[in-house]
Amino acid sequence: MKKIAVIGLGIIGASLGGALTRAGYAVYGTDQDAEAVKKAILRGYIAGEAKRIAEFDAVFIAVPPKATVKILDETPFKDGAFVADICGVKEPMEKTVYSRPRAYRYIGLHPMAGKETSGIDAASVDLFENANLIITVCSQTEESAKTEATSYATALGFGKIVVCSAKEHDKKIALTSQLAHIVSNAYVKSEEISGCEGFTGGSFQDMTRIAGVDERVWTQLYAANRGPILSELTRLIDCLNEYKHALQEEDDKTLCEALRAGRLVRERIKRKED
Amino acid sequence: MKKIAVIGLGIIGASLGGALTRAGYAVYGTDQDAEAVKKAILRGYIAGEAKRIAEFDAVFIAVPPKATVKILDETPFKDGAFVADICGVKEPMEKTVYSRPRAYRYIGLHPMAGKETSGIDAASVDLFENANLIITVCSQTEESAKTEATSYATALGFGKIVVCSAKEHDKKIALTSQLAHIVSNAYVKSEEISGCEGFTGGSFQDMTRIAGVDERVWTQLYAANRGPILSELTRLIDCLNEYKHALQEEDDKTLCEALRAGRLVRERIKRKED
Repeated sequence: MKKIAVIGLGIIGASLGGALTRAGYAVYGTDQDAEAVKKAILRGYIAGEAKRIAEFDAVFIAVPPKATVKILDETPFKDGAFVADICGVKEPMEKTVYSRPRAYRYIGLHPMAGKETSGIDAASVDLFENANLIITVCSQTEESAKTEATSYATALGFGKIVVCSAKEHDKKIALTSQLAHIVSNAYVKSEEISGCEGFTGGSFQDMTRIAGVDERVWTQLYAANRGPILSELTRLIDCLNEYKHALQEEDDKTLCEALRAGRLVRERIKRKED
Repeated sequence: MKKIAVIGLGIIGASLGGALTRAGYAVYGTDQDAEAVKKAILRGYIAGEAKRIAEFDAVFIAVPPKATVKILDETPFKDGAFVADICGVKEPMEKTVYSRPRAYRYIGLHPMAGKETSGIDAASVDLFENANLIITVCSQTEESAKTEATSYATALGFGKIVVCSAKEHDKKIALTSQLAHIVSNAYVKSEEISGCEGFTGGSFQDMTRIAGVDERVWTQLYAANRGPILSELTRLIDCLNEYKHALQEEDDKTLCEALRAGRLVRERIKRKED
């Protein structure tokens, strides 16, 4: 039977371990926090500690970007092992992997299934249920790695699976995830925030849910995807300035047209989602 | 028995009618769309059409800002009637009401219970269940209007009730509701939006849920609250520019500190919510 190792037992790693264990795989795990390993065993997410990564047939790397690059660069994986990372950026990982000969089969994964909480205590074996999964591939990706990734995805309960290049992933994700975290984080920094309890509804809850990013992880993610995120952020600021200008000029016609244009985009994507 | 009229049978008006009917009140309604009146009767939201507003003991005005001002200005309400509007801005309404002698008792209401959908088909008698309600008052507000508003709020199932001035309401709401709708609307206007299905998770869904605003209603709301919304929008743009600058300068330390500051605010408001 294949032996699987999960490196990093935070919300994603522990959930991944738990879901693969539930699907019948023999999963072991490791984390720099010994307490997380203990908890993962106790909660049945993993069968035990993963001591020598070189012994494993499949390895999931579930740690922040810089640590992922380091692990991909320095770990002596088993020849032919399936190795996947779950980082929110993909080009730097791919570059690291293919910058020199390697005997393992690499593939990039990005489960669109985070929460506003982190750590093993936020883990859940149902975390990936019906979530989107992005698989990143390039010309060097082994067919068998793709097949294997897809079968893990099925075991983990993912809904829609998208296969694309690391470059496309990084551009799309700058919009669909990275920008959202910056905006939410900036949104709450208002003087009016104090005493706003009772003045809030669903829009405020949704807008601010992910404001509490782990700044160390997200700074790494942004640094690793500077071009695309800068381009999205600039675009959004420019757009907000248009609304601001219309408001200042009391140009309600322009404001109304700007809002209408956004509504039409929203309706188009909503139709595709449904 | 008191007779209640609801003017405007969109999502809020129809839900309000339905919830008050369920609570045992005799509720009648009116709408410029005859179809909405028919549906409201058919679905049991109201007992019948409200033909002469002057006959009613209590009137809820549930139409967009400009129409609300017109109704407050021109309708011959019954002497002593309880009259409330449910608009998302409050100072212009109050100004209209108190600009001349009047024989009705006015109070401002703002149920924090919208949805991204509108119209009577989106109505639900449970819409206000546990939602926040803002009641706006001033020195001229009758005590009996406050008491009556509170008893309707209980009947409607509201959770937290905040009583404040129209000015405070308009400042707070610029942040907790109006800005969110502008941001969400601007957010989706990216070139990367096309083909982003499969690349989205909860953060994207939350960020874009309310992008499809009814531009005619919202342009009116923004126009009626220009100062506060401009101040919040300017503040947000300035803040986003700080992140942008840090990203451009590859100044990860500053970026990390900016994200940390946002996280601390979020944690503070989260603790107050819980």
